[in-house]
Amino acid sequence: MPDFAPMTLEQIHALAHACLTDNGCDQHNAEAVATTVTHAERDGSLSHGLFRIPGYVAALRSGKVNGAATPRAESLSESLIRVDGDNGFAPNALRYGIPLLADAAAQTGVAVLAMVRIHHFAALWHETEALAERGLAALACTAYMPAVAPAGADTALFGTNPISFAWPRPGDTPVVYDMATASMAMGEVQIAARDGRSVPAGTGLAKDGAPTTDPAKIADGGVLLPFGGHKGSAISLMIELLAAALLGERFSFEAREADNRDGGPPRGGEFLLALSPQRIAGPGWEQHAAEFFARITELPGARLPGQRRHTNRNDSTPRKVNAALVAKIRNLCGQSNQPK
Amino acid sequence: MPDFAPMTLEQIHALAHACLTDNGCDQHNAEAVATTVTHAERDGSLSHGLFRIPGYVAALRSGKVNGAATPRAESLSESLIRVDGDNGFAPNALRYGIPLLADAAAQTGVAVLAMVRIHHFAALWHETEALAERGLAALACTAYMPAVAPAGADTALFGTNPISFAWPRPGDTPVVYDMATASMAMGEVQIAARDGRSVPAGTGLAKDGAPTTDPAKIADGGVLLPFGGHKGSAISLMIELLAAALLGERFSFEAREADNRDGGPPRGGEFLLALSPQRIAGPGWEQHAAEFFARITELPGARLPGQRRHTNRNDSTPRKVNAALVAKIRNLCGQSNQPK
Repeated sequence: MPDFAPMTLEQIHALAHACLTDNGCDQHNAEAVATTVTHAERDGSLSHGLFRIPGYVAALRSGKVNGAATPRAESLSESLIRVDGDNGFAPNALRYGIPLLADAAAQTGVAVLAMVRIHHFAALWHETEALAERGLAALACTAYMPAVAPAGADTALFGTNPISFAWPRPGDTPVVYDMATASMAMGEVQIAARDGRSVPAGTGLAKDGAPTTDPAKIADGGVLLPFGGHKGSAISLMIELLAAALLGERFSFEAREADNRDGGPPRGGEFLLALSPQRIAGPGWEQHAAEFFARITELPGARLPGQRRHTNRNDSTPRKVNAALVAKIRNLCGQSNQPK
Repeated sequence: MPDFAPMTLEQIHALAHACLTDNGCDQHNAEAVATTVTHAERDGSLSHGLFRIPGYVAALRSGKVNGAATPRAESLSESLIRVDGDNGFAPNALRYGIPLLADAAAQTGVAVLAMVRIHHFAALWHETEALAERGLAALACTAYMPAVAPAGADTALFGTNPISFAWPRPGDTPVVYDMATASMAMGEVQIAARDGRSVPAGTGLAKDGAPTTDPAKIADGGVLLPFGGHKGSAISLMIELLAAALLGERFSFEAREADNRDGGPPRGGEFLLALSPQRIAGPGWEQHAAEFFARITELPGARLPGQRRHTNRNDSTPRKVNAALVAKIRNLCGQSNQPK
């Protein structure tokens, strides 16, 4: 059993921030990334919290990512904003783009934020929720590096290709999903193999291309499949097109070919769409949606996506952080070896 | 074995058109619906071809649908168009909306067409392909009537909730998917039951709410599930929000409560999004996407969605139409009992 260190959210933020500045981030970039990491820990999204710091640091140390990036935003039309992330981490670029996107969508009803030259290593709900908190519905997606075989094939081509959608509920937390279009994360497959559990049919293929429910065979040179067979594969294909072809950025296969394999996030694009129910449906939309959500939550067994994270968010006690991870991050800090 | 009648596409169109005008459609509305039905037969989408005519006729005869609908289009912003379908069938309303949507997206890079007060009984690829043929990426979705239980529940609340996406390939057919977010159509489940085949785990639940792979148990008072478990359920939820909450139209549960159950399509909304790669990525986008598609098609076993339909489309021989269906449609025609 791993040891856990209790840490407040302030301590988590300070550790992340110190480690990032010690490795080449300026204050703006460190603050943006540390806040994103802290929000993930706050919500119990551990795989996107401090766990990501070693990857962020690797990308700074190799020089792949610009820790002093100054993103540039450009309004290409009333409804189209492009943010050039200056080769930095996504959270800093999003600080420039989100307010512009929200204003444009509130004005015209629909707007797109095309994020290019960024390195995305976080969950997508940060940005879709930020838009929902401004009264907008939001859709976000990114490609990554090949990890998933298109349905019917046995070679990785698609990224795990996450997609997130958030719907605003004024006065309440948004309804939000954020999911990989891979059937499962490879990390989960490895854990299932370690624990001797089988995985559902459709999770992946063995090295020889044969379907298997044995996670060890998938992890040993096999490949993941998209969730939901051909249908999920079509959605993963769409994500590559929106995050790469539409934006003029890299497909997953191009990202891997260009990447220096330092373990940090490759360069890529992010597609963000914002829609205004106030502008499109008009007054009364909140109540109308609330009636629908009530129909769902009154069904035994059903729940609204995002609720588990929002419950975690309300926990004001310190978080239990893996002690070995904390030690590893401290070792990545500079001479101080301690958060400031 | 059913008998088949060979029919040219012209004969299919004439039969559909005659049956619709004999039952109250004016020329504009009959032409729009008959063309959509004919294109479905042309592409081998039999479940959206002549098979739908009895439902269209039922909705005309009951007075639920206005066969002489005159849609009204309104530009709400540079990027937002609303079409009020005047309570008619969707194909006629789309004739007003698609050109406006395409012009807006070409201008600003992104635009939404909010279709309200329509009755949608066709596939969605008709409209996404029409936009792709104008050089745009397009996303469309509609709700319907409850047929699918949210993941975790055992009561139908979501519609089969189709979603379609098309990507333009100038000089070639678009890459396009069009799929229900239900695991399977109930008709397919019934056919599996008739043939004594089992269905995949996750297809549906028996009457008592228990998961089953016995299609007879699903068809006998059970319920369908979304494709891909919780992930597919989240996408189906998003479709309800885009097609109903965002547009101020009916959710699937509201559509059923308001519907007269004549067997024709209920009133609802359709969400259409168009995106311009030329405007967003800029020149060179076609070649960039083509490189990605080549990576897919060179993988043994993989194929691009939509290709099967486009292959069918090139078949210039008469279509084999179920003879009993043709007889049924002729009986629904007026005094002529024959296509004009």
